[in-house]
Amino acid sequence: MKKQTTFITSILLSLSLSTFAQDNDSVMVRKFFDESLMRGKSYEWLRDLTGNVGPRLSGSEGAKKAVQWGKTLLESGGYDRVFLQDVMVPHWERGAKEEGYILNGKEKIKVPIAALGGSIATPKKGITAEVIEVKTFQELRALGKEKCEGKIIFFNRPMDATRINTFEAYGMAGDQRRAGANEAAKVGAIGVIIRSLSNTENDYPHTGSMSYATGVPLIPAAALSTKAATLLSNILKENPSTKFYFKQSCQTFDDAPSHNVVAEIKGSEHPEEIIVVGGHLDSWDLAQGAHDDGTGIVQSMEVIRMFKALNIRPKHTIRVVLFMNEENGTRGGIKYAELAKANNEKHIFGLESDSGGFTPKGFGMQGASAELLSKFQAYRKLFAPYGIHEFERGGGGADIGPLAPQGTVLIGFKPDSQRYFEYHHASNDTFETVNQRELELGAAAMASLVYLLDKM
Amino acid sequence: MKKQTTFITSILLSLSLSTFAQDNDSVMVRKFFDESLMRGKSYEWLRDLTGNVGPRLSGSEGAKKAVQWGKTLLESGGYDRVFLQDVMVPHWERGAKEEGYILNGKEKIKVPIAALGGSIATPKKGITAEVIEVKTFQELRALGKEKCEGKIIFFNRPMDATRINTFEAYGMAGDQRRAGANEAAKVGAIGVIIRSLSNTENDYPHTGSMSYATGVPLIPAAALSTKAATLLSNILKENPSTKFYFKQSCQTFDDAPSHNVVAEIKGSEHPEEIIVVGGHLDSWDLAQGAHDDGTGIVQSMEVIRMFKALNIRPKHTIRVVLFMNEENGTRGGIKYAELAKANNEKHIFGLESDSGGFTPKGFGMQGASAELLSKFQAYRKLFAPYGIHEFERGGGGADIGPLAPQGTVLIGFKPDSQRYFEYHHASNDTFETVNQRELELGAAAMASLVYLLDKM
Repeated sequence: MKKQTTFITSILLSLSLSTFAQDNDSVMVRKFFDESLMRGKSYEWLRDLTGNVGPRLSGSEGAKKAVQWGKTLLESGGYDRVFLQDVMVPHWERGAKEEGYILNGKEKIKVPIAALGGSIATPKKGITAEVIEVKTFQELRALGKEKCEGKIIFFNRPMDATRINTFEAYGMAGDQRRAGANEAAKVGAIGVIIRSLSNTENDYPHTGSMSYATGVPLIPAAALSTKAATLLSNILKENPSTKFYFKQSCQTFDDAPSHNVVAEIKGSEHPEEIIVVGGHLDSWDLAQGAHDDGTGIVQSMEVIRMFKALNIRPKHTIRVVLFMNEENGTRGGIKYAELAKANNEKHIFGLESDSGGFTPKGFGMQGASAELLSKFQAYRKLFAPYGIHEFERGGGGADIGPLAPQGTVLIGFKPDSQRYFEYHHASNDTFETVNQRELELGAAAMASLVYLLDKM
Repeated sequence: MKKQTTFITSILLSLSLSTFAQDNDSVMVRKFFDESLMRGKSYEWLRDLTGNVGPRLSGSEGAKKAVQWGKTLLESGGYDRVFLQDVMVPHWERGAKEEGYILNGKEKIKVPIAALGGSIATPKKGITAEVIEVKTFQELRALGKEKCEGKIIFFNRPMDATRINTFEAYGMAGDQRRAGANEAAKVGAIGVIIRSLSNTENDYPHTGSMSYATGVPLIPAAALSTKAATLLSNILKENPSTKFYFKQSCQTFDDAPSHNVVAEIKGSEHPEEIIVVGGHLDSWDLAQGAHDDGTGIVQSMEVIRMFKALNIRPKHTIRVVLFMNEENGTRGGIKYAELAKANNEKHIFGLESDSGGFTPKGFGMQGASAELLSKFQAYRKLFAPYGIHEFERGGGGADIGPLAPQGTVLIGFKPDSQRYFEYHHASNDTFETVNQRELELGAAAMASLVYLLDKM
């Protein structure tokens, strides 16, 4: 009887302790949301970064300014340590604004195009050739040299609109941009144009990285706006001998010196164990880089600002990293992981925000044990009052990815993805497209998760 | 033993039947999402309604055009029945553009203002008076006649940024707009200006309905943009004798004839039982009425279009109603319920979309039995793959509300609420602020729910 009573008492005690912990966690989560929504800095920081720094492609003057901007801001935060990590990054420049024309008999239609990042230039006069439209590499290979030699290949497979998570659709269409030039060169094409990776019909060409495979000729590659791609496709149906002209003068220079920007709050109990939170500081040259990834940068900085503002001393060291060069090389992320290893640092968690500053939907976790994953999923209850319900396996981020082999559990912040590819890598990725509340809710969700992970 | 076997068999059978039903439902939900995202009409309909019909306040030429627009479109849909319901609606007109100035000593600062719907005009020359800023009616009453007589009362209580559901914050601040003029008149004020009910700092005044109580003097009421309200408040701190001038020439005319627009697909098994789906066709005069409530209109029309396109014959009659006059009277909703009663119609469910065309988060249900509510909540599983997780008690909508006494179970469509009050009732509520995918996901969610309710 006594034994049973003790057992029941201990159950009741542990239940009430767990309820207490849950209640206490709720209070803390509420504090982060209130702080972000009432006294948040993320939105004004983003206005400053997008407006006063602007585009900041690796190796550019903008990127230099961005590093200085991040360092200065973090230094004013009163954290335990702010420092730069040296990293050599690719340096590619777009040059003069590209020109593109559909040449349908005597008709000459100007269309918006943008060189893909990493592409070579066309000859100075540009190139003109008949256009072969394909949807897949398979289709291209089937056509072969006979049909494609000397032509411009037009990859026109749209993002699949039925994918609810638009990143899936992006992933499925991405081969056209990344490797289209290589596949086209193999069949003797002299240039490549792709339908922009966007699910919105508009006039903005979306750039993004491509790279050349060894052993195949280098041919120039550019993106057409989705509207221009639809137009070209329709014209080709009427007149298969329609030609396309484009001219671009982009160029790759020697690698340039740059930096990751790092700030940290030392842990009170396990300073040697690090939780890293970050986004990427570089952006494409066409855009202000608001959603990609200004929002991730200011949300990450907001996480540690709120820890200080709310007077919360974490048990583990919390480190914010503004990674350089996610867009065309991930050199910042790779360097960060290299240094972590070289310095014998132990990174227990990595959290990245690089999916836009939209209303938070949840988080994805990779590299976790079943036990950890189930604890993580139990957070659902704490986040549900904030409309955040998705705690799933899978996630991470490009910049924290290189930490995976060191056993770091990687977490990706998941905002609503519906609008992201309207702006991604295009000149309309501006401050005005970011909603203050959505941005602030995301920062609060990230800070809350870091708080919970630190306690765990 | 036999009994137990039978019992187990019957459990297994019912489990597998229920799994089968669930699978089949999943397939149907997927079909609605694919149809909406691939071949949806809602976005192009919205472009047409907002661009070619435009503002459509009850009693206006725009409202007449909107009725014709809805009728014509629905008649082209091949439904079993399309008809109009006559309803007399209020007819208020804004008149010439309002003028507002902060008069700080010799400084005269022009600020954006808009008369509240239903307000009287100022005298032709406008009114000028010192400003008393208050946050609450209580504060106003405490000041009393002594301080307020002959003054302009400035209600400046912002929406609470910490409410995650912005409709809660709107509800909490709404008394200032709806009843501020009455409270101010009671203490002898000559005019009222309110901080726009918006959680965004910008230059758009947000109008909305107010009404006069009997037995108190009628005084003119207007909304200032949030930025202007903040500015005025700051200036008042420096100089409490700052004056305000405003002029408006709005006017209420006799009630005007108008219509609800109704279309239905007859039920195959219970044609006498009706599921009604709707939004409101009228909008404020300042705006294109995109999110309020063009999106609800086109989503509702899309629900029955998809039933036809997918060749689904519902068991119950599905009726789409484009309600007139939600904004300043709800006469359409009241008339609809009156006619339903007079015609002995049985409305089993009502679903309204009047919270904007943003990413769907869920639905709220009111008037349901515990059993029904629990069936409804079990739909979560079917909607989770679409990022839709919230199936809660509470909801409904202003237009379907009058059906409640007839025992109709009312459901409100719940999109993400973060951006709604950036646009609500203001001139920036335009087509461009609506994202096509978000709109289409909402339409698909609504159609899926109607499909499930019809089967239930």
